[in-house]
Amino acid sequence: MNAINAAAVAAEWSIRMADGSFAILAPESSLVTRISLSIKSFFKNLMLVFCRFLEKSWNIGMNEPRKVIHCIKVGIALSVVSLFYYMKPLYEGVGGTAMWAVLTVVVVFEYTVGATLYKCLNRATGTFLAGFFAIGIHWIANQSGKRFEPIIMGTSIFILGSAATFSRFIPAVKARFDYGAMIFILTFTLVSISGYRVKNLLNMAHERVSTIIIGASLCVITSILIFPIWAGEELHKLVISNLEKQADSLECCVAEYFSDSEDTTTNTKKMLAFKCVLNSKASEETMANFARWEPAHGNFNFQHPWKYYLKISASMRSCACCIEALTSCINQKNQASEFVRKQLTNTCQQVSSSTAEILKELAINMKTMRKSSRIDILVQEKNSTIQELETQLKQASGLLIVPKGAKNEKDEEKSVVRTSNVIPMVEIIPAATFASLVIEIATRIEGVVDAVEELSKMAKFKIEAAEKMKQSKSVIKIIN
Amino acid sequence: MNAINAAAVAAEWSIRMADGSFAILAPESSLVTRISLSIKSFFKNLMLVFCRFLEKSWNIGMNEPRKVIHCIKVGIALSVVSLFYYMKPLYEGVGGTAMWAVLTVVVVFEYTVGATLYKCLNRATGTFLAGFFAIGIHWIANQSGKRFEPIIMGTSIFILGSAATFSRFIPAVKARFDYGAMIFILTFTLVSISGYRVKNLLNMAHERVSTIIIGASLCVITSILIFPIWAGEELHKLVISNLEKQADSLECCVAEYFSDSEDTTTNTKKMLAFKCVLNSKASEETMANFARWEPAHGNFNFQHPWKYYLKISASMRSCACCIEALTSCINQKNQASEFVRKQLTNTCQQVSSSTAEILKELAINMKTMRKSSRIDILVQEKNSTIQELETQLKQASGLLIVPKGAKNEKDEEKSVVRTSNVIPMVEIIPAATFASLVIEIATRIEGVVDAVEELSKMAKFKIEAAEKMKQSKSVIKIIN
Repeated sequence: MNAINAAAVAAEWSIRMADGSFAILAPESSLVTRISLSIKSFFKNLMLVFCRFLEKSWNIGMNEPRKVIHCIKVGIALSVVSLFYYMKPLYEGVGGTAMWAVLTVVVVFEYTVGATLYKCLNRATGTFLAGFFAIGIHWIANQSGKRFEPIIMGTSIFILGSAATFSRFIPAVKARFDYGAMIFILTFTLVSISGYRVKNLLNMAHERVSTIIIGASLCVITSILIFPIWAGEELHKLVISNLEKQADSLECCVAEYFSDSEDTTTNTKKMLAFKCVLNSKASEETMANFARWEPAHGNFNFQHPWKYYLKISASMRSCACCIEALTSCINQKNQASEFVRKQLTNTCQQVSSSTAEILKELAINMKTMRKSSRIDILVQEKNSTIQELETQLKQASGLLIVPKGAKNEKDEEKSVVRTSNVIPMVEIIPAATFASLVIEIATRIEGVVDAVEELSKMAKFKIEAAEKMKQSKSVIKIIN
Repeated sequence: MNAINAAAVAAEWSIRMADGSFAILAPESSLVTRISLSIKSFFKNLMLVFCRFLEKSWNIGMNEPRKVIHCIKVGIALSVVSLFYYMKPLYEGVGGTAMWAVLTVVVVFEYTVGATLYKCLNRATGTFLAGFFAIGIHWIANQSGKRFEPIIMGTSIFILGSAATFSRFIPAVKARFDYGAMIFILTFTLVSISGYRVKNLLNMAHERVSTIIIGASLCVITSILIFPIWAGEELHKLVISNLEKQADSLECCVAEYFSDSEDTTTNTKKMLAFKCVLNSKASEETMANFARWEPAHGNFNFQHPWKYYLKISASMRSCACCIEALTSCINQKNQASEFVRKQLTNTCQQVSSSTAEILKELAINMKTMRKSSRIDILVQEKNSTIQELETQLKQASGLLIVPKGAKNEKDEEKSVVRTSNVIPMVEIIPAATFASLVIEIATRIEGVVDAVEELSKMAKFKIEAAEKMKQSKSVIKIIN
């Protein structure tokens, strides 16, 4: 009754529907109210989008506080460099070209130390080389008279600009000097054409180079001294975490295949962790490129063999591809005979867990930068589990479709059929395929082991006591 | 004797060796000759490196003439923009800020039209927004007195600089406005601090914006009018070529597995073509990002659904992973029984060739941007070949290790053993694994078919006559 009373208070038109219910007729809104409503909803949506954006940003900041630190570092560098404008003595020192210092800070400051150094060194070298060329050509043009000057300068800009642009397509140059080539074109063009109008070219070049050096060194100092983020360390951590993820992924996939529950969603995230390995190629290459420029830091020397990390990743990706093929077996696990699956459970899980163990041990080796003797033992263990699985697959023939007549014969004892289970081939093949893929993964892991071995040699990992003893024994053997 | 005479002419020391031969003792070279020799060899090496570099560049230029064209385009744009310095009326029009036009051309001119447009629009928007903010804050700071001015300005630079840097970490911003955010920081800082020293701020801002617009439009015009290279078209071509490569790769792998020759090197290049599919993720994403900015060109509208190309590639990569697993079967093909391999040859090759046929048809569909009705037929064909292969795998049980006793029994006719070949399970498993992988690839191909189907819907591919008839028939059915 209350509802009816409340409705009676506001004067409204209502209509009785066919089913006896009442529908309230809203008065036709005027143009003004409609516009105001749509404006309101527009701003509401805008606020909603903005709030969602803020939420997303907040999450990024919470998950990766180092990104926030990087932003603060950029802010600090910018504020410091702007002092050149605010403080009179500094401003008079560098003059109007203080702009170049600001420009350098904005353009050069990158997330990792390696990237910042790469850009700084490229910028400095590019500017210097271009200035040198430009002043040289300017001198030549000057000697050849007022008439030819613009022609010589224009042609040189065309030729050197095109050539430097082309050099950026050459892979070796692109990897190391892409930014430098761009800066070369920029500076060369600017100095060349300025030379035509500016009288004191050398003075201008000197001012510009010195402000660029000020900006660049400010970036390098901020980047290295305040919570440095090293590209090399990031790469190192990424490869280690990928090793661990792959180990988890493999174990999870195999466990999932042999589990009885139909619910595959619980572990999906862990199972699909190997996708990170497949997807991290580009970022690893970038990091390795930048890591090259970094000075010694932490456990890494100046010329730490970063490119060997890429080899490790490449062999990990070739394993991850097989795991990807494995996942489709999981979706079809019901096609395989349950009996065979149960038979293979133990050995398959042994193979997968010994393989995962190797991956985890490799991750630990890389983390501690030591070479443990356990790897060899683990590889041997893995190989013996593989052999066991292979034997079991051979024995699986004992479970097979036997000609129906054979059962009642007296030769029954001779027959390979050891159990009363007679399973059609079709139900064995899926399980056998799964097992073969597991074996393939376990075999391909040796590529990863070799790659880490190579890295440990190049990076001179410390050898653990046990490993040392083994090596010295073999040396003694050779001597004897 | 001649040799001895010749030796006698030049005075040289020689020594008689234990075996009776003579060895000539070279005089110990002096420091000067040694230095000159090492300098010579240094320059020789330098020349060698330089020649090799030139050769490499020449090859790149020969293989991809469009890269050379791009370089010439950059040269042209630079030469044109430098006219602003060489021609007096132009120079007086824009004043000393002509530098910004040059800077814009160098920084903004990219290989593809999309990338150039992306940078131009980002640069223009970033500059405009930053100028707007900076002048606003400058006005506020001006109102609050000489004392607070540098403090307000400094704080605003710190906060906005940090915030804009942070926004670059947000994936949605990074994909579309990364460069714009950088330009925002750059311009905001420059205008803010210049405002402190430069009197006529608005005039400066106007000059700068107009020169940037001159530079940007010069880039866009050159980029679009002279042999344009469209990111979208490149992406389209790349996906098509990847479809073709994958088809070749699959056919080649299967043929290799069933061929008798031991020599796997002949077709290795074709066999491993699928690696292109695995490795092109990063470049495809970049191209799709740039393609978004491109106007309508060729067969592509302004809002061509570029992101659907990424879906096609993703499902192609999932197939390519299985092909990668397949390649390791090829190396172990000797472990499989030759008889079983021969038995499976035809059906396996049928599956692979019908799958390859689908891929090729999809490539043709994309090339012509038509939707052919053949795809459905091909998919049906493929499915029936898969079924055939599965039946054959079932029948393979007939080739199996049978209890030895069974052979001599009278129930022989009942037995599943149809041939006299009795093959151990171990030799069947590798071939069965191979066949299962081929089936898996053929199944996964449907993901690619669906993705292309989705693209064809979104991009409104033309429907071929036959397909149209089919569709109109089904419409008639629904109406009836």
